[in-house]
Amino acid sequence: MELLPAQQIAFQHMLDTIRANFERFGFLPIETPVFELTDVLLTKSGGETEKQVYFVQSTGALEQAKKPELALRFDLTVPLARYVAEHEHELNFPFRRYQIQRVYRGERAQKGRYREFYQCDIDVIGKDTLPFAYDAEVPAVIYGIFSQLAFGPFTIYINNRKLLRGLLESLGIAAEKHADVLNQVDRLGKQDRAEIEAKVAGHTSPEVAKQLLDLLTANSLDALHAFEPQNANFKEGLRELEDVYTSTLALGVPTTSLHINLAIARGLDYYTGTVYETFLTDHPKLGSICSGGRYDDLASHYTKSKLPGVGISIGATRLFSQLLELGLIKSDVKTTAHALVLNVETAMSHDYLTIANELRSAGLNTEVYGGTDKLGKQMKYADRAGVPVAILYGSRERDGGAIKLKILRENREEDVPRSELVARVRAICSI
Amino acid sequence: MELLPAQQIAFQHMLDTIRANFERFGFLPIETPVFELTDVLLTKSGGETEKQVYFVQSTGALEQAKKPELALRFDLTVPLARYVAEHEHELNFPFRRYQIQRVYRGERAQKGRYREFYQCDIDVIGKDTLPFAYDAEVPAVIYGIFSQLAFGPFTIYINNRKLLRGLLESLGIAAEKHADVLNQVDRLGKQDRAEIEAKVAGHTSPEVAKQLLDLLTANSLDALHAFEPQNANFKEGLRELEDVYTSTLALGVPTTSLHINLAIARGLDYYTGTVYETFLTDHPKLGSICSGGRYDDLASHYTKSKLPGVGISIGATRLFSQLLELGLIKSDVKTTAHALVLNVETAMSHDYLTIANELRSAGLNTEVYGGTDKLGKQMKYADRAGVPVAILYGSRERDGGAIKLKILRENREEDVPRSELVARVRAICSI
Repeated sequence: MELLPAQQIAFQHMLDTIRANFERFGFLPIETPVFELTDVLLTKSGGETEKQVYFVQSTGALEQAKKPELALRFDLTVPLARYVAEHEHELNFPFRRYQIQRVYRGERAQKGRYREFYQCDIDVIGKDTLPFAYDAEVPAVIYGIFSQLAFGPFTIYINNRKLLRGLLESLGIAAEKHADVLNQVDRLGKQDRAEIEAKVAGHTSPEVAKQLLDLLTANSLDALHAFEPQNANFKEGLRELEDVYTSTLALGVPTTSLHINLAIARGLDYYTGTVYETFLTDHPKLGSICSGGRYDDLASHYTKSKLPGVGISIGATRLFSQLLELGLIKSDVKTTAHALVLNVETAMSHDYLTIANELRSAGLNTEVYGGTDKLGKQMKYADRAGVPVAILYGSRERDGGAIKLKILRENREEDVPRSELVARVRAICSI
Repeated sequence: MELLPAQQIAFQHMLDTIRANFERFGFLPIETPVFELTDVLLTKSGGETEKQVYFVQSTGALEQAKKPELALRFDLTVPLARYVAEHEHELNFPFRRYQIQRVYRGERAQKGRYREFYQCDIDVIGKDTLPFAYDAEVPAVIYGIFSQLAFGPFTIYINNRKLLRGLLESLGIAAEKHADVLNQVDRLGKQDRAEIEAKVAGHTSPEVAKQLLDLLTANSLDALHAFEPQNANFKEGLRELEDVYTSTLALGVPTTSLHINLAIARGLDYYTGTVYETFLTDHPKLGSICSGGRYDDLASHYTKSKLPGVGISIGATRLFSQLLELGLIKSDVKTTAHALVLNVETAMSHDYLTIANELRSAGLNTEVYGGTDKLGKQMKYADRAGVPVAILYGSRERDGGAIKLKILRENREEDVPRSELVARVRAICSI
């Protein structure tokens, strides 16, 4: 993805909003190098990840046909694990970090798939244990971000893998079949129920499959409480789920934006407790725009310490390009400048610089037209640039103690006393 | 360079300040992909650059032992040239862009050399021509950045390559010797003058070498005006140099921070007019911390259009690590949080979430302690985290309508009415 400046401004606004919300909850920034040692990066991977990795070699190494020692990160989780393991004794636990960086996947370039894209992650990492209370903070962060970004109504779905596991156990489904069953469960609401039920029935009986799917699609806490027999996982998962729900409401998230959804399983075995997904109400086909969950151990490959955590990730590049295509992101701000000082009379060029300096010192982003073109051409530049205010100041204005402002979007001019310039431009730009 | 969170906060502050100043002058953001086609990237290079490039291959390509098609950018100038050539018809000229991204050099890791580092660049690119007025804006941007970053006193040096060329021509030094002579000139003030003079004399005569170096080290505009014979390059260069100087002063840069320095030549042939360097007055050994200049044509390899420009670059990663070592950058802000709500009584946990939500809604970054540890351990966490204010609220405070604040850096507590909490925390954090 390579953007023109107007789109880049919109994208930057999105990243800034995400970052501000991460910091609003006191998360700490880190950045890790784009290179990781190949051995570190591929520790966890099965074959699939390995296929998608970009290996890196300097010219010298390439000539010697060495095996590449470095590769580009493909997510922010492996670098986080390596970072926490490496700096374990210098960090304050629970370690709350955010990370907004690009990641790389060796994919064929095609629509909706990027070889390079931004991920925006937060994680809270505990040492040995991580109190459950941190699980409730995550949906509040998600809510803060997507309310401010204003892409339209959205719902944060929460569920609990412990609860699902307890339920499958109670229904007598063998542990080695859980992954397959949960993969099917994850398709509920997206694909045909009868088909899903048939596949689940293949792992148990038609009766149990029906009972399971009825319970999961009912989304009723009462029905869950009435379910028997409840084993330890079931009870703890249910308690956690209810606790995340009520705590998130206490953090100011409205019930309209937060739903328990028992069919959210999140494919990965990685998650062990609370899980999160987020959907734009009017655009369910985009899939989850922000997902995550609780996991038992971040960095077992890199340290003997047990590091449980909870976190979420936003794939900002993909989301941005989808929303741009849907018209939900407008790139109507085309410039960082609030004002453009035109060159009305070249002899007065130092006056223009003084005016620009005045505006900039007052926090107004200001550009000065550097050429000596006719005013018509200068106005055309101003128009294309999309600058809110053009400033015209010639000897006539100077002698009258005034200054002329052109408000481009309203296509009108006004004269203001020279001394009121800054205040007036601030007012026009609502600063 | 991989930083701990407190240092990362300081580094982020540096990048934010640079970006804010770029935008203060109405520069537009762009980002380009980290990958460029190898053919594009190596167009300009001699052998030296090629040695320093990182080539990139996905697993599949590597297995087939193909020649790498992609490489990582080694600066932001080549990507800019490619970007402007590619999007020429969609951009508004003069195109004023800023770009803050990492670049990659295949160097051996060693102190002060990074394989991955941030560059922060601005350039104004004209189509066919670029008015000279833009040259005067650049030192004002530099001044804005380094005043705000407050690393101590600094000087922006300006010079003009046209003036130098005219001078060498007038002194009868052959054109093919200019590059060598200017390389020597660039060493003035850094190395022994006698040695430099001897080397210059090798390209001309001892008398001319002396005359040249006397003139360049005198830094006297009067002496330059008195110099004879003045050819066209000399005259135009001198006029431009004086114009940049007076215009920059009109933009509010004080004479203490802006010096004409005729010995600044900037090795590269690339620059053709104004050149800039910036030195920290108390740390000249760091070399120039922000350099650049005017060039005739940005993208002759990629387009037939002539694209003259003027720009500067800051190598942020190297600068940051040097200043950190010198103690000029303090990483004493260790957290993004203004307040930490402690868990005084677990039964009141929803009250803590409500308090956090109140503070966050008022723009205060707030963390909630998630564990049920004893208060002593919680305070220890607060201390290590470096959070300004810890908030203690138990049933005793609740019944009295008050709330207890601990201001950690002053090691004192105060009770405030519950209703004044937000205002008081804002005041303590000077927000």
